Amino acid sequence: MLITEQIKCAQRDVEATLNRYFEQPLDTEDSIKQATHYSVLNGGKRLRPFLVYATGRMLGAKHQDLDVLAAAIECIHSYSLVHDDLPAMDDDDLRRGRPTCHIVYGEAQAILAGDALQTLAFDLIANHVFDVPAQQQLKMIATLAKASGIEGMVGGQALDIVATNKAVSLAELERIHQLKTGALLNCAITLGALCAKGIEQKTLIQLKQFGDAIGLAFQVQDDILDIEGDTQVLGKPQGSDVAANKATYPALLGLAGAKQKAQLLLEQALRALADIDADTTELEHLAKYIVEREY
Amino acid sequence: MLITEQIKCAQRDVEATLNRYFEQPLDTEDSIKQATHYSVLNGGKRLRPFLVYATGRMLGAKHQDLDVLAAAIECIHSYSLVHDDLPAMDDDDLRRGRPTCHIVYGEAQAILAGDALQTLAFDLIANHVFDVPAQQQLKMIATLAKASGIEGMVGGQALDIVATNKAVSLAELERIHQLKTGALLNCAITLGALCAKGIEQKTLIQLKQFGDAIGLAFQVQDDILDIEGDTQVLGKPQGSDVAANKATYPALLGLAGAKQKAQLLLEQALRALADIDADTTELEHLAKYIVEREY
Repeated sequence: MLITEQIKCAQRDVEATLNRYFEQPLDTEDSIKQATHYSVLNGGKRLRPFLVYATGRMLGAKHQDLDVLAAAIECIHSYSLVHDDLPAMDDDDLRRGRPTCHIVYGEAQAILAGDALQTLAFDLIANHVFDVPAQQQLKMIATLAKASGIEGMVGGQALDIVATNKAVSLAELERIHQLKTGALLNCAITLGALCAKGIEQKTLIQLKQFGDAIGLAFQVQDDILDIEGDTQVLGKPQGSDVAANKATYPALLGLAGAKQKAQLLLEQALRALADIDADTTELEHLAKYIVEREY
Repeated sequence: MLITEQIKCAQRDVEATLNRYFEQPLDTEDSIKQATHYSVLNGGKRLRPFLVYATGRMLGAKHQDLDVLAAAIECIHSYSLVHDDLPAMDDDDLRRGRPTCHIVYGEAQAILAGDALQTLAFDLIANHVFDVPAQQQLKMIATLAKASGIEGMVGGQALDIVATNKAVSLAELERIHQLKTGALLNCAITLGALCAKGIEQKTLIQLKQFGDAIGLAFQVQDDILDIEGDTQVLGKPQGSDVAANKATYPALLGLAGAKQKAQLLLEQALRALADIDADTTELEHLAKYIVEREY
């Protein structure tokens, strides 16, 4: 199966899981549930869910357990997008070609919808009966919290805001992305692995190296697409990073330098997989897809 | 010891726990940590932490475990205040006599600080090794998530926004408060109880009845204080609910009716405690304090 088709399978599975939570048809009077549902079922690529499924499958985890973790991590990702799009943050009216949450439901409900989606992520994991010991389930929650909080995604977003309109070094840019995007991508991989029984510490470390590399590669490619991509295909205006005066890899390394950087990171990712004692084909394909994608 | 002194002890203990997390002195360059610290160490009454401690103590829980849960629930409460104060929500510049988070750190950092505080709550519970089975620890997380999400606090805030400037029935007002304030107060009690070994389902149910009654009583008294209270003592402008055109108990029942309602709820709360096989003195005093307090 092509990697794009496998990603579509992850998309279908995680959306079915999320829809189960929301119990269709939605109460049209319940604006917060509407806003939450609108924000999480938004036609996203579902890259993080795919990482949960691919890693878990590779290590023999139970599919229903992976469904829950895929849904949880997508709740965190979606909440961060809803808050990121707010007027006080990036002030974006469009997301994947659709009006953003605050445009449809107003700012107040968008703030609350983001808040509710974060809570839902922890709710989902804490309430599911996993095929692994409770101690491992607690570790999933701890991992997700670490990756999304001050030492992860939110910390990266805060740094990003402070850095806007300022000169940023390559090391600082890397730090921002490691936290802002990398932490959660990495977390998806670890969550998938934590669904497997008797997962070894050694494997978790190798997967983390893989995750670090593809996390950065993802961001480098995002920056490249902001210059080379097509607004129609991207679902957001091409050149919006440049317009927002954000530091990017092409700005610091040149376009050719950024492309070289993406290739180097891909090689690092593949090297990390080489030592894992399992069939890593899906993750290899994903790594290649990340630096070759066009949206 | 007077109940006000016991609340001060809870205040001291929970603030010591929170300060341990933030490792003083704070990095002055780290604006998100500053904003988060500013928002959670804000001179609050710490009523929810007190409920955790009082309930846990009554049932023989370990003090260090209660510290963690008290800190976690206060993180949730503080995050909700930071987001509630935002211009798009209640647009408050002052909270307990101090400038609100977005006034000091700007809206973007305030949104993120609230987000980070929510994450921190789950982080604290998941990362701490409790003196109870992991299964019970997962139940704590599930309880906190339920009370703060769409079926609890956030759901209540969303209803409250929709209800502003509309005619609201007494049943609707009660529903809003049960979710907006009651769910988290109740959760504090349950979390304290879940720290005790071998807690019985019967006791949890009686505590829930107690929590439901004091949760509503708290809100009724808040509404009364908005009319009768002193701006200086309240730390917010007296009459602000009326100014914001919010439905209140005195508006629906009259001032005398609201006071009678508070007394009725106090009696309900005390009846629920009567059947609990433990020394419920502290919780009794708290219930009386809630309907007699002046701020």
